[in-house]
Amino acid sequence: MNKTTAPKAPDHLREDALDRKEIFKGHLLHVVQDRVRLPNAREAYREYVLHPGAVMIVPLIMQSDGAALVVMERQYRHPVGQVMLEFPAGKLDPGEDPVSCGQRELREETGYVANEWAIAGQLHPCIGYSNEVIHVHFAQGLQAETRQLDDEEFLDVFTAHPDEVMDWCKSGLITDGKTLTACLWLNQWLKGEWPLEWMAVGPSRP
Amino acid sequence: MNKTTAPKAPDHLREDALDRKEIFKGHLLHVVQDRVRLPNAREAYREYVLHPGAVMIVPLIMQSDGAALVVMERQYRHPVGQVMLEFPAGKLDPGEDPVSCGQRELREETGYVANEWAIAGQLHPCIGYSNEVIHVHFAQGLQAETRQLDDEEFLDVFTAHPDEVMDWCKSGLITDGKTLTACLWLNQWLKGEWPLEWMAVGPSRP
Repeated sequence: MNKTTAPKAPDHLREDALDRKEIFKGHLLHVVQDRVRLPNAREAYREYVLHPGAVMIVPLIMQSDGAALVVMERQYRHPVGQVMLEFPAGKLDPGEDPVSCGQRELREETGYVANEWAIAGQLHPCIGYSNEVIHVHFAQGLQAETRQLDDEEFLDVFTAHPDEVMDWCKSGLITDGKTLTACLWLNQWLKGEWPLEWMAVGPSRP
Repeated sequence: MNKTTAPKAPDHLREDALDRKEIFKGHLLHVVQDRVRLPNAREAYREYVLHPGAVMIVPLIMQSDGAALVVMERQYRHPVGQVMLEFPAGKLDPGEDPVSCGQRELREETGYVANEWAIAGQLHPCIGYSNEVIHVHFAQGLQAETRQLDDEEFLDVFTAHPDEVMDWCKSGLITDGKTLTACLWLNQWLKGEWPLEWMAVGPSRP
């Protein structure tokens, strides 16, 4: 069931998977239906999206006065019918490690290459109906190169001050869940509460 | 297309929906595939989950020293194969307004009834493949009654200090996206940065 990293759940909460039915494998989505045994020994069905995992990057541009700007994107998201303000993110390719994915997505979507990376944590965006995990990375030491968007990808790239970004979260201009989680990390890091461990990372070329 | 609240997107980013195909309507999930016209006039398919929307509640228990505790849940989530630490949440019933949904879910899942509610904001947990919106509510003035879990619902309820909860976010014990977003709001509210407007709400009875 590809659940090797799952910690053992207390018996009074745990559900055991019995079997799986393929529901749909489309251009983007892969949906399955698992039959599970509930803690009360009854059976139920759990339908959800199988997802390869993703990486979100909080790209920092350090200014001469020591203040940081962040790089963000404006992108139309058809499911919610809106242009969303987001941090760059993208899906893991098969076998790809998260830092390589972060490097690739940052370069493809924004054109930036970063030489220092920090792994902040992970988030599960949608635990009710998806197994997706998003690795949250910070990147600094940015150099502008050329972006390489996919054929079906259209997005604007811009920079913003973290105070401005926090105001957008408060006012409801930012509602993307992964970006709100990134802002929790960004705010705590800027306040010195949640330190990051930076790693030097050489450029990865396609 | 039920997108009445969507602001008009700039033309260089907007996708226009052409038609829709039903993919799957199961016990839990409703999946559709829309054909869209991209900004470059080419066509693409967007597959995603149609969701009725949900409410998350940050329930506060004010202590005699003025400090707040929050009410949380431990629940096994089959898609991620783990017990997750979460704020209470649940789906909107057809025609239900978010505050009534928050009252209902809080009482069903935790047994608490709250007489003051505040609307913090909204989050879109999964903009790549779901139209779900989660309304973020805070609740205080809690009174314990009897909880009424669904037949297929198993969860533990506990209280925690906000500092402890923030430590769990930092350490990776909390990875649920909606709960991380709630912690951004909780932390900013406790610091006096993001004030909440409280409304007196009478008890809603089933």
